[in-house]
Amino acid sequence: MLETEATPSADRPAVILVRPQLSENIGTTARAMLNCGLTELRLVAPREDWLSEKAVAASSGAHALLEGARAFASTEEAIADLHRVYATTGRNRFMVKPVVTPHQAASELRRHIGAGLACGVLFGPERTGLENDDVALADVVVTVPLNPDYCSLNLAQSVLLIAYEWYQAGGPAQPRAMTKGAAPVAEKRDLVGFFEHLERELDGCGFFRAPEKRPVMVRNIRNMFERADLTQQEVRTLHGIVHELVTWRKKKGEEMPS
Amino acid sequence: MLETEATPSADRPAVILVRPQLSENIGTTARAMLNCGLTELRLVAPREDWLSEKAVAASSGAHALLEGARAFASTEEAIADLHRVYATTGRNRFMVKPVVTPHQAASELRRHIGAGLACGVLFGPERTGLENDDVALADVVVTVPLNPDYCSLNLAQSVLLIAYEWYQAGGPAQPRAMTKGAAPVAEKRDLVGFFEHLERELDGCGFFRAPEKRPVMVRNIRNMFERADLTQQEVRTLHGIVHELVTWRKKKGEEMPS
Repeated sequence: MLETEATPSADRPAVILVRPQLSENIGTTARAMLNCGLTELRLVAPREDWLSEKAVAASSGAHALLEGARAFASTEEAIADLHRVYATTGRNRFMVKPVVTPHQAASELRRHIGAGLACGVLFGPERTGLENDDVALADVVVTVPLNPDYCSLNLAQSVLLIAYEWYQAGGPAQPRAMTKGAAPVAEKRDLVGFFEHLERELDGCGFFRAPEKRPVMVRNIRNMFERADLTQQEVRTLHGIVHELVTWRKKKGEEMPS
Repeated sequence: MLETEATPSADRPAVILVRPQLSENIGTTARAMLNCGLTELRLVAPREDWLSEKAVAASSGAHALLEGARAFASTEEAIADLHRVYATTGRNRFMVKPVVTPHQAASELRRHIGAGLACGVLFGPERTGLENDDVALADVVVTVPLNPDYCSLNLAQSVLLIAYEWYQAGGPAQPRAMTKGAAPVAEKRDLVGFFEHLERELDGCGFFRAPEKRPVMVRNIRNMFERADLTQQEVRTLHGIVHELVTWRKKKGEEMPS
């Protein structure tokens, strides 16, 4: 069977281009991916048509990936069904998150996928890279060690290096990691749902006193919970904690004599 | 010192493009090289001017490598002063020569150069690759393991993968590990202080409905936060979150008419 089908498959990571600017770069990305056996391409708010003539020409035969690509309105939606997300960045974001090389990322991705987790790697727009809000949604940051005096990879080259390391790390399937027993890992949609619940309540109680600081505080809070590697059950527990604190508050309010 | 000078240096391999067709590809090759600290470019019978506007634009700031590039009439002349030559090929040439991966080539090149040997890597023309006569001049063949159903790297991508492995095989550029910057990690006493604060409030609002389940629930909640590898600042934020939810609840309770 040819490895040219773009069917989402759980046995390899999805490549997620966030707000790519040029359709040609989506084509060259597809080409880089297929060289290394990656077939699932997701696009967040692409500016141009990823099935344009330019894109198809640039894909150099890997057009099946373009045809199978799925577009999403937001990064949150694009990663909703994934369990582990890696964010590629060219510079240090000073977030409290593990930072790994492509080589380390590849071996971690193999391990996660071997354990049945759906994985994806985020790549930012051509000139600017990922925004901090996108990085905050990821579990791990990947940075390519390069000449510190000249780091200038284009989009498809960045994808190529990650995909290359993924392919080189292949071999016999690795044993399932059973650290958490049978507890199913939370999907990103569950996590984002909890973030929104918590942030709604924090807005309600006036936690964000200075509105201009809200974005960075939200990002910091999200980062904390991202790092905890939560299970589905744990996300339910967190919902319960926030819900109970708030519900009791309302009940108490009703019961309390004025 | 900026690593943008194209002076031939014996401490890293030369990249030798054999009969490259498009000047643009020479520019993108220079860019790929400089990302990985390679600075010496040699050209065998290039068809176009490697200092053309297109080439310089494609080099994206790495034009010093183009200016320092040297052209030769034949592969023999281009490798005359080298001790060890590697030839990149996309398919097996069935010659009696060692065939290595880029990863292996990088470690061999480091070893040769450490022993004072001058090294170079040959790359063939865009569509056809190296001719067998060029390959015959090399000591070792390098082939990138890729998807057997789709191998389609362009010239600069092939150079990038070899240069990338070269750079990764070096000592100094290893991972930066965790990017906590100056953020001090929470001590366990801070963490326990937060646990006790949270659990007191959860007791207060009746979160633990079944008393016999309280110990295991407490343990599970503590585990979640333990895994998040919190900083001192983050523990303060978590205190703030719980405090605000509760304070607002009490205030609301007082204000609310019965």
